[in-house]
Amino acid sequence: MSSAVSTVITGIGELATNDPARAEGGGVLGLVRDAAVVVEGARVVWVGPAVDAPAADVQVDAGGRAVIPGFVDSHSHLVFAGDRSAEFEARMTGQPYTAGGIRTTVAKTRAATDEQLTSHVARLVAEMRAQGTTSIEIKSGYGLSVHDEARSLAVARQFTEDTTFLGAHVVPADTTPEDYVDLVTGPMLTAAAPHARWIDVFCEDGAFDVDQARAILAAGSDSGLRGRLHANQLTYGGGVQLACELGLVAVDHCTFLDDDDVSALASSGTIATLLPGVEFSTRQPYPDARGLIDAGVRVALASDCNPGSCFTSSMALCIALAVREMRMSPAEALHAATATGAAALDRDDVGVLAPGKAADLVLLDAPSYVHLAYRPGVPLVAGVWQAGRPVVPR
Amino acid sequence: MSSAVSTVITGIGELATNDPARAEGGGVLGLVRDAAVVVEGARVVWVGPAVDAPAADVQVDAGGRAVIPGFVDSHSHLVFAGDRSAEFEARMTGQPYTAGGIRTTVAKTRAATDEQLTSHVARLVAEMRAQGTTSIEIKSGYGLSVHDEARSLAVARQFTEDTTFLGAHVVPADTTPEDYVDLVTGPMLTAAAPHARWIDVFCEDGAFDVDQARAILAAGSDSGLRGRLHANQLTYGGGVQLACELGLVAVDHCTFLDDDDVSALASSGTIATLLPGVEFSTRQPYPDARGLIDAGVRVALASDCNPGSCFTSSMALCIALAVREMRMSPAEALHAATATGAAALDRDDVGVLAPGKAADLVLLDAPSYVHLAYRPGVPLVAGVWQAGRPVVPR
Repeated sequence: MSSAVSTVITGIGELATNDPARAEGGGVLGLVRDAAVVVEGARVVWVGPAVDAPAADVQVDAGGRAVIPGFVDSHSHLVFAGDRSAEFEARMTGQPYTAGGIRTTVAKTRAATDEQLTSHVARLVAEMRAQGTTSIEIKSGYGLSVHDEARSLAVARQFTEDTTFLGAHVVPADTTPEDYVDLVTGPMLTAAAPHARWIDVFCEDGAFDVDQARAILAAGSDSGLRGRLHANQLTYGGGVQLACELGLVAVDHCTFLDDDDVSALASSGTIATLLPGVEFSTRQPYPDARGLIDAGVRVALASDCNPGSCFTSSMALCIALAVREMRMSPAEALHAATATGAAALDRDDVGVLAPGKAADLVLLDAPSYVHLAYRPGVPLVAGVWQAGRPVVPR
Repeated sequence: MSSAVSTVITGIGELATNDPARAEGGGVLGLVRDAAVVVEGARVVWVGPAVDAPAADVQVDAGGRAVIPGFVDSHSHLVFAGDRSAEFEARMTGQPYTAGGIRTTVAKTRAATDEQLTSHVARLVAEMRAQGTTSIEIKSGYGLSVHDEARSLAVARQFTEDTTFLGAHVVPADTTPEDYVDLVTGPMLTAAAPHARWIDVFCEDGAFDVDQARAILAAGSDSGLRGRLHANQLTYGGGVQLACELGLVAVDHCTFLDDDDVSALASSGTIATLLPGVEFSTRQPYPDARGLIDAGVRVALASDCNPGSCFTSSMALCIALAVREMRMSPAEALHAATATGAAALDRDDVGVLAPGKAADLVLLDAPSYVHLAYRPGVPLVAGVWQAGRPVVPR
């Protein structure tokens, strides 16, 4: 017998498990009605109809409300300093604004102390957790020097194992692209690698081209980092096909895709991670999620929380936008924000509620997960358990 | 000397007052930087730079964050029973759904007890308050019988003085339009009037035409109720011009307007209340807020919180949508959701933070009100004072 305390959450009106074994009758979400979940320590140990639930040390009554897996936000840029709301306001009102951009954040981030950066990330992570996000990926990318990229990742690593080295975010003003790629693939990579699981490149006109991205990802791979890619966000280009060719687990943005890109995604199995908060916050056209799904592409949703193009941390808003603007069904959108988000981080321990999986659960103040899209903007999270511990409300 | 306890909220990095006396230098929001507000009892007694603030019994430090007036949500339909998330899901995914519509909610509302209706409204009002809404209008309109309209308003009156009789929401299935207008302007009005301040008509193809709306508003006026109107939501029509001709304080929706409608609004001073959550939740085109404002029309924002076309209660989301989709500036949107919302209810005691006004304030977990649009979907409300009492966090 385990000595860990066990908890049964019963009275769950609608439980989304994402368990493929429950797809028959439960759809892509593996829904169970009138359900219970038993948690022991950090893991789920039992899922099923409430009437069959075993006893446990602690009993929690969901009161007929819905429970979903915690959100898995596979794309965020939380390590930064400074405020860019004035730049956002200028962009949305069509006013000129010359002082903005990533480089503003880089200057503020370099000037911040480790403690300031850590405190700022802690605040955003807590904000995310209060909104139901229990797993996150955090990128560097506002340091852009050997020292500042390494410390950005060291800060991020305090909050998640899924840290991503994004030295190749933009070329700093004081260097050439060639010299900077040499730095990123050389000393910066050496300093960053001990703190990172992933390496990422912003592959876009004005940032890094396909050949540079290929070289950076290859260097990362040699240092034990797995590749991810920002691609096809602002323009058509070869980034998505590079991701598919390299067999990356996910490629992010995918807003401007041609038929060959879609075919490559469908045949490679590389996940297309869509970030509709960006299109909302920049007034750009949305990616064609419906077309991707209908073509057989696996789609994940993530926040892209960052101070420039999208400062939302709300996975629920991403779901609402996916339904309103990208014609995903509410079930597809929730699955994309949980199970497929986990797959985009090559994680099989989160995003699914089944015996042996992480006890990362969200209790909604609603009878159905559909309310995440039906009630846009409304804070519906009534409780969050992370690794079995109730973390919201605190 | 008053015996009421006084509180000074100091350390306000950015205070939006909506005080026209502060427009010079403070813009439409009458912004004050590094500000303080002093509250005594239910009223604001002092506003100004923190360095000049008088002493008070209690001191609260805003820590450099922003404070805004509480939102004034001038259009909501909170008195109902039942859940229509399945209808929402069908609509958004293009599936047929025959069991939906207002009449479904009418049947559930009639079947609910007074206690059930009251409990449901209380839950939604608390949800709104936690999101910063301190003044609300609540309509009837899911009773559609003498008894059920009167009790709906009696329930609503427990939560606000701004109750609106909307017997003329839709013609029930078991009667003719002519007979129903006779009922609404006769016994139903008599039963409803003691519980209502306003009377409203859904003036639209398939609901009530302009002549019927005119007759219903006239009868309401004879019973001491002031008129409001749902108009031009789904089609072009004469509703907006009727509202202007009658000098109504506000006309709501205003999605399909021709040039004559805009001219009538600009010259009459009738406020156009826009409800962008509806367009978000029904995938309809948005009203042209930018065009209205540029033509000199006063624009308010409200939630239209209702179980059918828009089940958001988030005024912050309405602001974000107004900025993203209707090209209002963040300042215009906040003003529309506070001061102009108050004007749309002919209220001069709320929506403005100045001596003598209601102490309805919201502390944001952000340095600027711009974050309401810059951080869509993120719950940014850190504290709410309603009539001087701290009601959030509880």
